[in-house]
Amino acid sequence: MVPGCYLKPRLKSQKSDMRIAVDVMGGDHGCGVVIAGVKRALEENKDLSAIYLVGNKDEIHAALPPRGFRDHRVRVIHTTEVVGMCEKPVVALRKKTDSSIARAAELVSEGKADALVSLGNTGGIFAAGTFKIGRIAGVDRGCIATVMPRQESEFVLLDAGANVECKPMHLAQFAVMGSIYSHEVLGHENPRVGVLSIGTEEGKGNELTRETCRLCKKLNLNFIGNVEGHDLFKDHVDVVVCDGFVGNVVLKSLESLAVAMFSMLKRELMHSAQRQLGAYLAKGAFQSLRRRMDPEIYGGAPLLGFNGVVFKAHAAARERAVASAVRMTINAVKNQINQTIARDIAEANRILNLDKHENGGTPNA
Amino acid sequence: MVPGCYLKPRLKSQKSDMRIAVDVMGGDHGCGVVIAGVKRALEENKDLSAIYLVGNKDEIHAALPPRGFRDHRVRVIHTTEVVGMCEKPVVALRKKTDSSIARAAELVSEGKADALVSLGNTGGIFAAGTFKIGRIAGVDRGCIATVMPRQESEFVLLDAGANVECKPMHLAQFAVMGSIYSHEVLGHENPRVGVLSIGTEEGKGNELTRETCRLCKKLNLNFIGNVEGHDLFKDHVDVVVCDGFVGNVVLKSLESLAVAMFSMLKRELMHSAQRQLGAYLAKGAFQSLRRRMDPEIYGGAPLLGFNGVVFKAHAAARERAVASAVRMTINAVKNQINQTIARDIAEANRILNLDKHENGGTPNA
Repeated sequence: MVPGCYLKPRLKSQKSDMRIAVDVMGGDHGCGVVIAGVKRALEENKDLSAIYLVGNKDEIHAALPPRGFRDHRVRVIHTTEVVGMCEKPVVALRKKTDSSIARAAELVSEGKADALVSLGNTGGIFAAGTFKIGRIAGVDRGCIATVMPRQESEFVLLDAGANVECKPMHLAQFAVMGSIYSHEVLGHENPRVGVLSIGTEEGKGNELTRETCRLCKKLNLNFIGNVEGHDLFKDHVDVVVCDGFVGNVVLKSLESLAVAMFSMLKRELMHSAQRQLGAYLAKGAFQSLRRRMDPEIYGGAPLLGFNGVVFKAHAAARERAVASAVRMTINAVKNQINQTIARDIAEANRILNLDKHENGGTPNA
Repeated sequence: MVPGCYLKPRLKSQKSDMRIAVDVMGGDHGCGVVIAGVKRALEENKDLSAIYLVGNKDEIHAALPPRGFRDHRVRVIHTTEVVGMCEKPVVALRKKTDSSIARAAELVSEGKADALVSLGNTGGIFAAGTFKIGRIAGVDRGCIATVMPRQESEFVLLDAGANVECKPMHLAQFAVMGSIYSHEVLGHENPRVGVLSIGTEEGKGNELTRETCRLCKKLNLNFIGNVEGHDLFKDHVDVVVCDGFVGNVVLKSLESLAVAMFSMLKRELMHSAQRQLGAYLAKGAFQSLRRRMDPEIYGGAPLLGFNGVVFKAHAAARERAVASAVRMTINAVKNQINQTIARDIAEANRILNLDKHENGGTPNA
């Protein structure tokens, strides 16, 4: 069997009747930019059959154009509460039963929507996925998969923060889900999957990464073994697997550096009249790089493993980034990634359980 | 006691008679650029009383200007072996008794040199520190401290890869050593020390970071608690403490992104004649940013906790970066950081042992 080939055959039919619930309340810039992003997404995607704008109706109506959207696909779902950015997710979700994220998740769990997009508290979205929508059968842990840009394309890093302590079995499942996302949504033909470690040689790393490598080798992935930080932006790997502690620290550190570099470059360019003129002439280059690298523009993360597509857009996302989040979500729904995840996780679990029995049930699954 | 104040009073006398052993064999660009960097450092630093160029004498003499340095402070130490970049450090060090790194470390352990600078295999340098030079009394683990640039100054991240599995006690000692380095060598008045975690709130993180925070609070550090990736380049923290797995992954990921961003920017700037003209006019801005952010230019890492100052320069360092590595090393020797480390680690251990007894000897020290 060619590695990764059991991921290849797409489920033949693509879903065409798609309904998305958008929690419009979570972003840094108010619900206006979220609605503008949704409008753009609606114009681009004729396949969308319904978009639910979930949030406070007064704020939503104030942000709509005078006569609304003039689009019969838009429905407003009024809610009275919001899970704040600094709230403890699980507690807030339990207490605020009429929060926008809870209601949006309920639309998915009730089968009224196929997917959920939110700019809000990541922990809150994850908790809504776990407790309101529920996990796909066989998936032990949901995870956050961040899509990061590089020169020619992008790679997926997961888990980016949902699971601080992980077992090798969890990371192996993340590898399967990340590979499916990379293939089905990002279009990588045979995604190269690696475990993030401190060197590429076999055996480098800690107990978790070593055992994860051993398990991943048994799965039908295009598994390339350990990768290190230096590989990330070099087109060596498409799916980077790590625990949520490492993933979160790496993701935020990278975002911090990207923002700092733009700010330092800007300052350098303002240094003299000549540089300012140069910057003016080369403006397009900076804008293009920024569109590609600025986390507030490209940023977004699918939450994988739930019985519905869940997408977290960057809190600071504006119109373009929201539209892009909706677009990614549509791709995931259209290609029915959750059906593929259910099928491939079942197969992976079969192999991993066999391994567990062979090893006397001791290992770290 | 004001937090951090026991770090403040510098040892009154600064060392003035300094001798540095430079392993000239490890770099990517041959020993010529290392020697050119040493030459620059010698010109700048009249306090240096001796520089040992340790490596193959034929290669060294071929790289020297026709009449040598004309500097009586330069001495060549001939060695016949080199620890390669891909060799297993401890094995290679034991086998290659006449390697440049082993001989340079011996100059330190024999008291002939105060410090060691190398561009070679980081593991090899660390092993030479551990087995040839030895650790400062009271220091349980040596560590790699990377200095990273940000807008106005820089911060230290440690451990950057020497210790994959750490206990809270080790991280607490790294915090003390990092704080001293930040103060004595980088000139931060009252360095802010943080533990790298996945959120700034108390209690966020894993068992290791939570217990490290508890211990660090007891020490006389300017301890600010958890920091997250987003804080790194924001001038929120001067000393970032983590285990060697996380530190190595973060460091290499950041280096990878910095290089990728320069390469993507270059490509964008070549896109049209107008952008090329702009780039030409603003050239100074890019050069200046590059000098600041390119790991091959600024990169370098002191290895802390050894009975001698040990500095690892980037393998791809050229003249300027080598000179800068020697400059940092001189600062560390001049300010006698190891005497301060010995004193403050002894005090920290006293506090940590007291804590251990109070907690019934159970905790993770």
